[in-house]
Amino acid sequence: MTTQPTPVDPPQLASSPAFAQGMIVPAGRTLYVGGQNGIDSSGALLDGLEAQTAQAMRNVLAVLAEAGTDADHVAKLTIYLAAGVDPAPAYAATGSVWGKRRTAVTVLAVTPARPGAHVEIEAVAALPD
Amino acid sequence: MTTQPTPVDPPQLASSPAFAQGMIVPAGRTLYVGGQNGIDSSGALLDGLEAQTAQAMRNVLAVLAEAGTDADHVAKLTIYLAAGVDPAPAYAATGSVWGKRRTAVTVLAVTPARPGAHVEIEAVAALPD
Amino acid sequence: MTTQPTPVDPPQLASSPAFAQGMIVPAGRTLYVGGQNGIDSSGALLDGLEAQTAQAMRNVLAVLAEAGTDADHVAKLTIYLAAGVDPAPAYAATGSVWGKRRTAVTVLAVTPARPGAHVEIEAVAALPD
Repeated sequence: MTTQPTPVDPPQLASSPAFAQGMIVPAGRTLYVGGQNGIDSSGALLDGLEAQTAQAMRNVLAVLAEAGTDADHVAKLTIYLAAGVDPAPAYAATGSVWGKRRTAVTVLAVTPARPGAHVEIEAVAALPD
Repeated sequence: MTTQPTPVDPPQLASSPAFAQGMIVPAGRTLYVGGQNGIDSSGALLDGLEAQTAQAMRNVLAVLAEAGTDADHVAKLTIYLAAGVDPAPAYAATGSVWGKRRTAVTVLAVTPARPGAHVEIEAVAALPD
Repeated sequence: MTTQPTPVDPPQLASSPAFAQGMIVPAGRTLYVGGQNGIDSSGALLDGLEAQTAQAMRNVLAVLAEAGTDADHVAKLTIYLAAGVDPAPAYAATGSVWGKRRTAVTVLAVTPARPGAHVEIEAVAALPD
C-alpha cells in the first residue's frame, strides 16, 4: 500500500513518541470508523475501563481490516474517556492493542452516550487504491 | 452520483440497523459540515431537545443540499447531546429527519458551547465529481 | 495552491462572519492536525485560558506550515473548551491568531484529557498537489 499517511512534527513543537502532531493523507479513498465502545461480538459491554479500552481498540482494528486497511494507515484517532477516569490505564490498554506506531490523536474527557461505557474510540484512515 | 460511501461491518462486531461501523468514501471532493445547533433561519434557538435535534438535522441536510450532495453520501455523523439529557427522544427526532439510512456515527454526552443548546450535529460527506 | 476549500452557506441558515456552515475540499491530499493544547516549544503548559488558546492556535498553524499549507486551506476547526470557562475571551484569543477567515467550526464544552489544559484545538486542512 502506497497510501500510508506521513507524520508531521514541526521542530518548534514538543515532540512525543506516542503521537504525531499531524498526519498527511495521500489523495484517495478514506475510511471513517464510527465511535467504538468496549463491546464484544455478542453486543455485551465489557467490565471496567481497561477491558473496555482494549476491546474498543480491537473493534477499530476490526473495521480497518474489514475495509482492507490497517493501523499503519490511520490518520487520526479520537479517544473519548468518561469524565473522572484515570487516563493512565486507558493509555496502557490502548497501547497494548495499538502498539507503538504514531498518528494524530485527540484525547478528551467526555462521556460516551451509551450507558456504562467508559471509553469510545473513532478513527480516520487511508485506504489502498 | 458514483461517490456514495460504502458501509463496513465486520462480522465479529455486533451489527445495527441504525448505523454502520465504518464507511468507505471514494476518492474525490469532501464536504465538512460544521456543528449545527437547533437554530432556525432567523437565528433563533428552538425550545426543547426534540425540536432542537430535528432542526439541527434539517440544518445539516440544508448544508448538504447547498453543496450538491445529500444524506445518502454522508460518511460520518457526530452527535453531541448535552450531558444529562435522555438520548431516546433525541434519536427519535434525528430519525424523523434523517430516515433509516446507515452511516458511521459517534454519539457523545457533551454540551455545545452555545448557551441553551441541547444538541449539536456535524457531518462529513462525499461530493460528486 | 488551487486546493483552497470553498465555504457553503445555505440561504435558509443564519449566516455568520465568523464561520462557514460547511466547507468543500477539492480532491487531493488531506492534513489531520491532532488536538493541540496551549503548550509551548519546551513542553510547558501556559497559564490561563487566553494564553493557552492563542498558543494552541499557534501550534495548529505550525503544523499547517510544516505540512506545506496554511490557515486559508483549513476545512474544519474543532475547538474544545473546558466546561465552565467563559467562551468570549477564548474566541478573542483564537481570533487574534487565526484572523478573520471563515471555515467550518464545532465548539464544545469538554475538558481536554491533559491536566490543567483549558482548551484543545484540532483541524483538517487541504494540501497542495
